[in-house]
Amino acid sequence: MEPFNIKKLAQALNLSTSTVSRAFRDNADISAATKERILTMAREMNYQPNHYASNLREQKSRTIAIIVPELANDYFSQVIHGIERVARARDHHILIYVTDDDYEKELAFIRHLHNGRADGIIMSASGEANDHTYLKNLPHQRLPLVFFDRVYEDIACPRITTNDYDSSFQATRHLIKQGCKRIAYLAVNKNLSIGKTRMQGYIDALLKYKLPVDDQLIIDCSNSYAENSRIIKEMLQQLQPDGVFTSVERLAFATYYACYDLGISIPGELKVISFSSLEIAALLNPSLSTITQPAADIGREAARMLFRIFEDPALAGSQEELVLHSRLIKRHSSAVDF
Amino acid sequence: MEPFNIKKLAQALNLSTSTVSRAFRDNADISAATKERILTMAREMNYQPNHYASNLREQKSRTIAIIVPELANDYFSQVIHGIERVARARDHHILIYVTDDDYEKELAFIRHLHNGRADGIIMSASGEANDHTYLKNLPHQRLPLVFFDRVYEDIACPRITTNDYDSSFQATRHLIKQGCKRIAYLAVNKNLSIGKTRMQGYIDALLKYKLPVDDQLIIDCSNSYAENSRIIKEMLQQLQPDGVFTSVERLAFATYYACYDLGISIPGELKVISFSSLEIAALLNPSLSTITQPAADIGREAARMLFRIFEDPALAGSQEELVLHSRLIKRHSSAVDF
Repeated sequence: MEPFNIKKLAQALNLSTSTVSRAFRDNADISAATKERILTMAREMNYQPNHYASNLREQKSRTIAIIVPELANDYFSQVIHGIERVARARDHHILIYVTDDDYEKELAFIRHLHNGRADGIIMSASGEANDHTYLKNLPHQRLPLVFFDRVYEDIACPRITTNDYDSSFQATRHLIKQGCKRIAYLAVNKNLSIGKTRMQGYIDALLKYKLPVDDQLIIDCSNSYAENSRIIKEMLQQLQPDGVFTSVERLAFATYYACYDLGISIPGELKVISFSSLEIAALLNPSLSTITQPAADIGREAARMLFRIFEDPALAGSQEELVLHSRLIKRHSSAVDF
Repeated sequence: MEPFNIKKLAQALNLSTSTVSRAFRDNADISAATKERILTMAREMNYQPNHYASNLREQKSRTIAIIVPELANDYFSQVIHGIERVARARDHHILIYVTDDDYEKELAFIRHLHNGRADGIIMSASGEANDHTYLKNLPHQRLPLVFFDRVYEDIACPRITTNDYDSSFQATRHLIKQGCKRIAYLAVNKNLSIGKTRMQGYIDALLKYKLPVDDQLIIDCSNSYAENSRIIKEMLQQLQPDGVFTSVERLAFATYYACYDLGISIPGELKVISFSSLEIAALLNPSLSTITQPAADIGREAARMLFRIFEDPALAGSQEELVLHSRLIKRHSSAVDF
């Protein structure tokens, strides 16, 4: 089949190619009837205007890039859904990039996106990023960036976050009220601001309820499942905590597996609570108590923020922050009646 | 900051713009030293060639579109990871589109992709697609399509599948050997080929072991959680099966919730097995027996197939099929010793 092009479409309709082209660009100087006639014929012929040619003229890709540390996680898929709904309503596509928590990949993605492939970026920063000056040197007005969840404090960009300090404080207080006196805190990267904020909520709750803060019980885990399994088992055996608060859900899963292996009963001997948006938290053995972030709302607000920047590029350099609230959901993993 | 363009880069290096442009296109007629000099300077200046302009010349986007019915599912995130690894090694990007099992979205995505935004599509077809003649009219040689998992039988495209018939047969036989006599089969869309194949494996296992095939026990569920919950509870109460085999994991979750609500013990009163790649299947209460597809391998092979088509476009219209094998993993939800 010979490709159908804009010239042939114009000929078939007895119109100029520039009229047809203007119809595709939604130009206001074409009558609704003519536009309808052109689009109907185009649909019938299975014709779509060449994306790259028209983007070159408009310098717009109508694409939003989403950069996330991982995909196999209900939190990120819910955020992506939230973004997608807003994007689709405004006829934008989304591009999803997964860093596997690898800072080098994040850097490569962002550099690459600065070639016009996307109009804006919504990103949750990757765990191992310790130096990110490269981001400061990029022209954010040309390719705006909105952070969610994991942010770099020193980069001037709007951000959508949750009340992580309060949530951590509440989770720790909940374990204390359930009788825990030695609560371990498992983090992924203490250097990220979100890691620090969450840790501070944990520490302040201990102080408030006059429990000792034991540095040994604050544990920096890794991205390797095998390594975390070893770290957690060692911690459980040597330090014998009576509660564990994990900052990401995969550390709660690792804790469950470790307890199964070591024959430690949850919640009898160890109470567990985690940051998590897992939709089947109630189906776990035992059901997992969680701090659940409003993931879909976070995605929706991040997308709305990006569209506001498209309309008012000056916002790109603001540190505007929208803080949404998480919920503490008590389930069996932190129950007393076992 | 004034944007840095290719002309300024060429001036700074005292080279012609066409030499610089050829360096970015990896043209062989430039010396390695000159190329290195150009790329180093470009990196220092944070310059990337305009993606759309260079794609217009090459007519290549170096992008692979992945269309999946859902994201919040370990199977699809593992497949995407498998695709991504192959794509990245060949310096291609991936675009992810989620249909939410909605055929209209699938159609809109594919139409849109035919405008040059991607070089090829890897797709698992959406559940509700009953008429897909539109796909036959698209020029697959220009935008090749590789199916995985859920395919349309009548569309001539390469496909990566798993041994669904055998797997279903094995899962059903496993429940029979565990003592089940009334096994319900929960499907999402019986009209899709994968639904039919899986159902046939179930039916043939019943026949082979001389159990009656009761049409009432073959249940077509929906995409709505609330509706499925109602359907499954009604089925459990009215038909009193002693086994449930679910074709997708979210129906297993719905079955668990229904059993919790109705006080039906798994596996004591009801044994459950499901197609699922859930990484925490062992953490469920009780741990879930699964048929687990080699999801990452499926993604890898689908991507390799697409790159083979890029090299040999004639393959685009072949029905070449690669069949990978799933594994039956027995856990507590189908155990006898309870």
